[in-house]
Amino acid sequence: MSDLIELRDRMRDFTAERDWGQFHDPKSLILALVGEVGELAEVFQWLPSAHSNALSREEPTATQVRDELADVLLYLVRLADVLDVDLHAAALDKMAKNASKHPSRPL
Amino acid sequence: MSDLIELRDRMRDFTAERDWGQFHDPKSLILALVGEVGELAEVFQWLPSAHSNALSREEPTATQVRDELADVLLYLVRLADVLDVDLHAAALDKMAKNASKHPSRPL
Amino acid sequence: MSDLIELRDRMRDFTAERDWGQFHDPKSLILALVGEVGELAEVFQWLPSAHSNALSREEPTATQVRDELADVLLYLVRLADVLDVDLHAAALDKMAKNASKHPSRPL
Amino acid sequence: MSDLIELRDRMRDFTAERDWGQFHDPKSLILALVGEVGELAEVFQWLPSAHSNALSREEPTATQVRDELADVLLYLVRLADVLDVDLHAAALDKMAKNASKHPSRPL
Repeated sequence: MSDLIELRDRMRDFTAERDWGQFHDPKSLILALVGEVGELAEVFQWLPSAHSNALSREEPTATQVRDELADVLLYLVRLADVLDVDLHAAALDKMAKNASKHPSRPL
Repeated sequence: MSDLIELRDRMRDFTAERDWGQFHDPKSLILALVGEVGELAEVFQWLPSAHSNALSREEPTATQVRDELADVLLYLVRLADVLDVDLHAAALDKMAKNASKHPSRPL
Repeated sequence: MSDLIELRDRMRDFTAERDWGQFHDPKSLILALVGEVGELAEVFQWLPSAHSNALSREEPTATQVRDELADVLLYLVRLADVLDVDLHAAALDKMAKNASKHPSRPL
Repeated sequence: MSDLIELRDRMRDFTAERDWGQFHDPKSLILALVGEVGELAEVFQWLPSAHSNALSREEPTATQVRDELADVLLYLVRLADVLDVDLHAAALDKMAKNASKHPSRPL
């Protein structure tokens, strides 16, 4: 099974088991996504740009980075599910649009 | 003295006293602003829309709301200072642009 | 009159003249704030960190920066008004909390 | 092949073909992610909460929603690649942490 479908189904079960579906309207889920992006930003904000990648791999930062990236993905997957959007198909379509907007070589 | 100038000067002193100016490049300050907006979003995310205003006035939420609004303002003031932007003048100019873009009555 | 009160009153009038108060619940205003912070982030995202401040002062970028900083402030002022928060007082109180959390010299 | 690995590889090729890797340090990619989350927020900001899901399925909004969800995913996938984080594994691990933090039934 596809990764994104698997995560969608797991999030759907997780939500149902806690009766949290009542809170998962799109605007609330976008605010939750913003909260997680904010936590990701906080991990990196004061790292010097030139060394941020290397520094973010040292513990305990590395675990925070992994957890925050995961949280962003999980809320994004949940939001797409609530909106009946197939994230994988949407991403492939958008990449095709981006490629035609930004050709890799002069036409 | 104007509120915004006062806050700018206080943030400037606060930063200098801690030798934090070295961290305050624009991209880092925007990430810090994003972090604070994320914390604000987290306070409201699961409040039912129709009652979010009233519920956010109950403690301990009310203090969180006040603190997060303040943090967003403080980083915004600091960012504008680093970029030499006069926030008050910029806001008045932008309101004039907005008014001409969205006239209050049909022209 | 204080800057922030003046901006609050102007935004209040601007909103009333367009009958937009019906849209200005806290969660919607936070999403609007997120939208403006996103536009600010887009101005800076691909500027090299070491030169981002200088590059952001060249036109047309300088005008975009000024406008986006203004938009963030205007939605923040509007949100605080809807929540009956005095932004100036909240910012001063938060700076006092921050100063006690991060003393400028070892105690 | 897994969805997320496929998207990672496509983004990696897309970036290399345009020589954009030089811009893709973590802090810049987080700002780009913030920009896309901001565009998603703008699509929903003024939709009434109770009807936002239904209204977001009408064109042209539906295509905007799909495109913005895709853009958020694509930058997240790119950021995780730059940081050598396996998004799928990170998401499964985080779900396990969340489940133990928020048990579905009283312990």
